[in-house]
Amino acid sequence: MLAHNRYFGPDSQQKDIAVKLYETAAKLPLICPHGHVDPNLFADPNYSFGTPVDLLLIPDHYIFRMLYSQGIKLEELGIPRKDGGPVETDHRKIWQTFANHFYLFRGTPTGMWLAHEFEEVFGVKEKLHGQTAQAIYDQIADCLKTPEMQPRRMFERFNIEVLCTTDAATDTLDIHKTIRASGWKGNIRPTFRPDAVVNLGTEGWRENINRLSAVSGIAVNDYPDYIQALEQRRAYFKSMGAAATDHAVLAPYTERLSKDETRSIFYSALRGEVLPDDAQRFSGHMLIEMARMSCEDGLVMQLHPGSLRNHNPAIFANFGRDMGADIPVATEYTHNLKALLDEYGRDPRLTLVLFTLDETTYTRELAPLAGHYPAVKLGPPWWFHDSWNGMARFFDQVMETAGLYNTAGFNDDTRAFPSIPARHDIWRRASANWLAGLVVRGMIDMDDAQEMIVDLAYRLAKNVYKL
Amino acid sequence: MLAHNRYFGPDSQQKDIAVKLYETAAKLPLICPHGHVDPNLFADPNYSFGTPVDLLLIPDHYIFRMLYSQGIKLEELGIPRKDGGPVETDHRKIWQTFANHFYLFRGTPTGMWLAHEFEEVFGVKEKLHGQTAQAIYDQIADCLKTPEMQPRRMFERFNIEVLCTTDAATDTLDIHKTIRASGWKGNIRPTFRPDAVVNLGTEGWRENINRLSAVSGIAVNDYPDYIQALEQRRAYFKSMGAAATDHAVLAPYTERLSKDETRSIFYSALRGEVLPDDAQRFSGHMLIEMARMSCEDGLVMQLHPGSLRNHNPAIFANFGRDMGADIPVATEYTHNLKALLDEYGRDPRLTLVLFTLDETTYTRELAPLAGHYPAVKLGPPWWFHDSWNGMARFFDQVMETAGLYNTAGFNDDTRAFPSIPARHDIWRRASANWLAGLVVRGMIDMDDAQEMIVDLAYRLAKNVYKL
Amino acid sequence: MLAHNRYFGPDSQQKDIAVKLYETAAKLPLICPHGHVDPNLFADPNYSFGTPVDLLLIPDHYIFRMLYSQGIKLEELGIPRKDGGPVETDHRKIWQTFANHFYLFRGTPTGMWLAHEFEEVFGVKEKLHGQTAQAIYDQIADCLKTPEMQPRRMFERFNIEVLCTTDAATDTLDIHKTIRASGWKGNIRPTFRPDAVVNLGTEGWRENINRLSAVSGIAVNDYPDYIQALEQRRAYFKSMGAAATDHAVLAPYTERLSKDETRSIFYSALRGEVLPDDAQRFSGHMLIEMARMSCEDGLVMQLHPGSLRNHNPAIFANFGRDMGADIPVATEYTHNLKALLDEYGRDPRLTLVLFTLDETTYTRELAPLAGHYPAVKLGPPWWFHDSWNGMARFFDQVMETAGLYNTAGFNDDTRAFPSIPARHDIWRRASANWLAGLVVRGMIDMDDAQEMIVDLAYRLAKNVYKL
Repeated sequence: MLAHNRYFGPDSQQKDIAVKLYETAAKLPLICPHGHVDPNLFADPNYSFGTPVDLLLIPDHYIFRMLYSQGIKLEELGIPRKDGGPVETDHRKIWQTFANHFYLFRGTPTGMWLAHEFEEVFGVKEKLHGQTAQAIYDQIADCLKTPEMQPRRMFERFNIEVLCTTDAATDTLDIHKTIRASGWKGNIRPTFRPDAVVNLGTEGWRENINRLSAVSGIAVNDYPDYIQALEQRRAYFKSMGAAATDHAVLAPYTERLSKDETRSIFYSALRGEVLPDDAQRFSGHMLIEMARMSCEDGLVMQLHPGSLRNHNPAIFANFGRDMGADIPVATEYTHNLKALLDEYGRDPRLTLVLFTLDETTYTRELAPLAGHYPAVKLGPPWWFHDSWNGMARFFDQVMETAGLYNTAGFNDDTRAFPSIPARHDIWRRASANWLAGLVVRGMIDMDDAQEMIVDLAYRLAKNVYKL
Repeated sequence: MLAHNRYFGPDSQQKDIAVKLYETAAKLPLICPHGHVDPNLFADPNYSFGTPVDLLLIPDHYIFRMLYSQGIKLEELGIPRKDGGPVETDHRKIWQTFANHFYLFRGTPTGMWLAHEFEEVFGVKEKLHGQTAQAIYDQIADCLKTPEMQPRRMFERFNIEVLCTTDAATDTLDIHKTIRASGWKGNIRPTFRPDAVVNLGTEGWRENINRLSAVSGIAVNDYPDYIQALEQRRAYFKSMGAAATDHAVLAPYTERLSKDETRSIFYSALRGEVLPDDAQRFSGHMLIEMARMSCEDGLVMQLHPGSLRNHNPAIFANFGRDMGADIPVATEYTHNLKALLDEYGRDPRLTLVLFTLDETTYTRELAPLAGHYPAVKLGPPWWFHDSWNGMARFFDQVMETAGLYNTAGFNDDTRAFPSIPARHDIWRRASANWLAGLVVRGMIDMDDAQEMIVDLAYRLAKNVYKL
Repeated sequence: MLAHNRYFGPDSQQKDIAVKLYETAAKLPLICPHGHVDPNLFADPNYSFGTPVDLLLIPDHYIFRMLYSQGIKLEELGIPRKDGGPVETDHRKIWQTFANHFYLFRGTPTGMWLAHEFEEVFGVKEKLHGQTAQAIYDQIADCLKTPEMQPRRMFERFNIEVLCTTDAATDTLDIHKTIRASGWKGNIRPTFRPDAVVNLGTEGWRENINRLSAVSGIAVNDYPDYIQALEQRRAYFKSMGAAATDHAVLAPYTERLSKDETRSIFYSALRGEVLPDDAQRFSGHMLIEMARMSCEDGLVMQLHPGSLRNHNPAIFANFGRDMGADIPVATEYTHNLKALLDEYGRDPRLTLVLFTLDETTYTRELAPLAGHYPAVKLGPPWWFHDSWNGMARFFDQVMETAGLYNTAGFNDDTRAFPSIPARHDIWRRASANWLAGLVVRGMIDMDDAQEMIVDLAYRLAKNVYKL
């Protein structure tokens, strides 16, 4: 089913070059510096993925949001309700619904990832539709019972060199400790994500601060304690192998607050009385503080702005976060990041990896920023843009101004562990296709292209994240 | 003059596939769910289009705005002035001016539509320029005298299955009644467009309300009457065959107002004292009300935001609306539509077809919204973007995230009746070209592509609009 | 090293057409209506460019900003500090650093321009890298000692028909006088750039006004004097051959102020007390005044908005302006230009050439404005977008709506004199490639394409700027 030299443009001269470049990259180890894979997969050597629906559908909002958009209720897909209310539990029935609607994924990246997983991971050669649904279910279910499908074995088979998870600042990293203590050699690292303690408007922020006090052993009663506790957590994450931090904000606004302001806003927050505008200014201040700490401890700083989370209130109320109901908004970097870059943009110790859901910023803001500031690197196409066309737009719009060497290679950013090889494979094919276009038009030579494909597939991610 | 396999990309492997797919679609009936064709064309069985200039130039601001942009006055093109002042009446002279400047349309969609019309509708084989102007004028003028050029005959020859017009909420639909009563089988349907009664700042709003009272038989003295009158009109339109409503706004802002607010703003408007900000909030509230009514009566809701109308005040003063002087502005959907989607985005009874003049919203907002909300579908590239490149950008930027099945197929949105086949033909070629690109790269297979081309050319528009 | 038919797309049918069209354009004279070449180059018949580093690196922020982005300090590159502090003076060492990092320019327009200059201007056949650095330095240094490298000789060899510089409104144009008096036939013209006297917030504005008084001979004590002095300067520039004015603003905001407001804001500015908001409104008023003067004196008006200058305060403090630290921002034209266009958009005497750093405005605002207003023409892709992909996006996104004949051809906008042929060559190749794409797909015929390539390469710039 999967065509051998798939995805490359059809021109035979360019395609031959693309295939050659792809062959250089195809077997390189996978560097996974950012993602949302559950570390529990690797803590228990006998971890089981459950049914095909448990593995492929229920945890993956990329898939079920498409079914939802066509009127299928999340309950029909077995997605657990927050109130424990009834949802479909017959996984064969759910799989049938999925298969009946698999045509919805025609031409989508999700469709391409699934096609790759079905064939390469589970050996499925047939196309999924209503008639083949149950046979394919059986085949995947049988496959999942074999020892090769144990996550640690898959990790090795996928040739993953390093995989970073994403973890709350208040996480004890006990799972990571268990993995490390197990003697298994897989390189799994945590990432420090402090959103829930630095964004004062977060639901449950006050309890998160209590947890921060508890895990850090520093009673957080005022702003200096708070900063100290965050520094303590970063040091702990670093000692557990963390290479990076990660920050999600609606707007990447930054502002340096005075000492008096930070203290007074922080006190208001502790009393549950913070104003929304102050909360945003405090987040903007904390991004600068995080840049300062990165200069000091060397953790790479990642910024993922521009998603208006939980746009659909009924879905949020009934199912919670990360349910495919996050919608991007226009995002501004030139003004917003200025305060942070004024202080740390020139600092050789800082690496700030910027992501975007607003592709208009590629040529207008991000490539010029990355093409000037020593600290700034651009992350790969993110989320909705992690697709064949999204990658083509990224290459076409970013590289001429930023240059390849101000970009950060690829990351898969996924919670769907078995989709990791498919995602890296598409990036490597898209990279080869882009480079082949430059070679065939005489813009670069083949020697350069052979170096660049290895940079794109492997070295940039490894170097930028210091892995 | 028209190349047989025109417009497809040059790669022979991809082109062969595109031609095959196009052949599947080329002869399918035309579904025209949205446009501005004058229903009078079909009310009188002996309707005559007049001269070539009457037919092709004077009513079509796509054409004369290009001539205007190069310094030709609208008066020289015979466009009637509001004050009845003198304009050129020698249509041969106007045609000569047009022909002398026909090179301005090189590489434009208008140029492509005209080339198609000239050859396919009027049998003109020569290229239009200064030397050929008068001979081509004669040929078209002669052609227009033949019975084949009668609009009903053209409708049949064009193989139009259904054509929807756009009609004011206060229209009595007498023309539509005449068409229905005539016994002619052509399927012409009205569309309910209430802008002039729901946007309180509309020039002449108060008179429009009086007209609303008159045609509905409901004296509109306060807000509940007003809602009732609108519901009455919708029911009437529906009884006359309407499938949809249409709403033009500058920003697609929505907000649910309280009962007290709606009443008080409405009273202010009746007294001619409404504040601009209140007018915008009221429009935003009425969009939600229209969604509610769509849930109840099943009319598909279309939203066309983002055009700053009548940008050139002298043109507006002298010639009125729809004179090629409407300029798009940046448009926001994620925040603006939230209030409406909070209430009705999950409602299986609602179909909300979104259009845009701001292509930056394709990947950032529209595709994610359509790829999540059951009610949301995306309309085809609109107005300036109804072009070969505009379609290519739409396919490339929308489909990966929204999926084909959250889009609404094609509509020609034209007031130039004889251009309808040309417009659908370009869409069908562009669709075939896009699908062929997916097939040749192994992203979909030919079976899928053969289904998708029929969806794009015919089924999606028919199904989304329930025609 | 340079491939003969480089840059064209690989499809052989399209490429053959592109080559044919390119051959028509390749040898046409260069029209350079906008740029930043120093007129001093042409005033002294024995002008010497200095070392390869003096010529290629130190004056060109396109190059050194990329090295800076990778952590190389501007001091290491010999860029002079404002405080006269120590910087590297060993140009062989600087060149070695440059060569060691030349890989950073892979796939960038700067890399392509340099490759062209090295081979075509200096006869360098080898690729620049660490090992070849010193040999190439020697070759260029030797070349620079030959009489062929004298700027006037290069101007003739480059086949430049006319080159416009950019000059402050308060410039005496003495250098231009010297060139004219020298008897040399090269056509060098000044351009009137009044930013430093019309933007009230400019550092040193008060001294600029004193200088304006001095050079105009009109004591500028109030607003009418000021207008009169500006008109006097424009008349002087025109008498010295100027064809155009040029205006850089952050936002292209326009507003007609009342007489009282202009006077009162101007007095505040003279007293050093102007408010930021008033300064912006005054700039917006002055853009309209500049349009009025253009109607009267026939100078073409150029508008370059959207760059947030000097984003990196330490670079600005230590090195000054134009140091590669200018970052674009989102730019709005539809609302902002309305006041100016209301007054002069229909005036046949005005030519307003619009540029942008925000490509989202191509389809949304700029092409519709140029496709309607007689006065508006669109300048070519600017700055970061003056690249192979930038040009492809411009052709794809602008031409369908604006039409070719509402665009202004090419300008190189460079301060790097020896890069001028490379820049025009890429434009000509990109134009041929775009047109070949239209021909091969049957959208235009070869006769049209042969006219359009000459328009793109030569006639449009010459006609729009009345050169």
